[in-house]
Amino acid sequence: MGFDPATLRYNEAGLVPVIAQEAATGEVLMLAWMNAEAVAKTLETGRVTYWSRSRQAFWIKGETSGHVQTLVEMRIDCDRDALLVRVAQEGPACHTNRRSCFYTAIRDGAEVVIMEPMA
Amino acid sequence: MGFDPATLRYNEAGLVPVIAQEAATGEVLMLAWMNAEAVAKTLETGRVTYWSRSRQAFWIKGETSGHVQTLVEMRIDCDRDALLVRVAQEGPACHTNRRSCFYTAIRDGAEVVIMEPMA
Repeated sequence: MGFDPATLRYNEAGLVPVIAQEAATGEVLMLAWMNAEAVAKTLETGRVTYWSRSRQAFWIKGETSGHVQTLVEMRIDCDRDALLVRVAQEGPACHTNRRSCFYTAIRDGAEVVIMEPMA
Repeated sequence: MGFDPATLRYNEAGLVPVIAQEAATGEVLMLAWMNAEAVAKTLETGRVTYWSRSRQAFWIKGETSGHVQTLVEMRIDCDRDALLVRVAQEGPACHTNRRSCFYTAIRDGAEVVIMEPMA
């Protein structure tokens, strides 16, 4: 069936959580949010476009940083209230210049930084 | 530094989104939610424990189905408002009996089921 972004289940703010995963390696890069229009824009343009909750504006990933996420495939979960975008990530996905935002692990009850910023 | 679940940034319902990823393969299995107590229980027991928003109760993954998620490592994102749990998943993660909840892809504008239920 054809896909209509309006058929997803958005939260009270009109957003769904989106997991970005590097398609080539399986690495989970970040979690961000989309509204229905961001979902549509992402599919239309092939450039992953989130909704920035802090700025209340569209956020075309990499537009200012150059760290573009090119969409490889979008997937919907069973409850239609979460998305997985498989992407090709240019450089770091994280604003700290790390490849992934999930660079802090909990090991033996302590927080450990397990990833360095990219050169 | 020691990890205190209270230092995460929870939403207005007291929850953080949690990505579950199979540690052995990198496959993204599901997205669910934890409150601070579920985070603590997961770390204490090594059994991934969510907060069920529909049931408003703790949800020890696999407790009734046997499809247990054993924690391999918990990771925190840069904003401290999302978690990644790397797990060893027993059988299907999805209630539809599929390995992953993200079994529907959008291809050429249409929804395509790309994964069959496990035997």
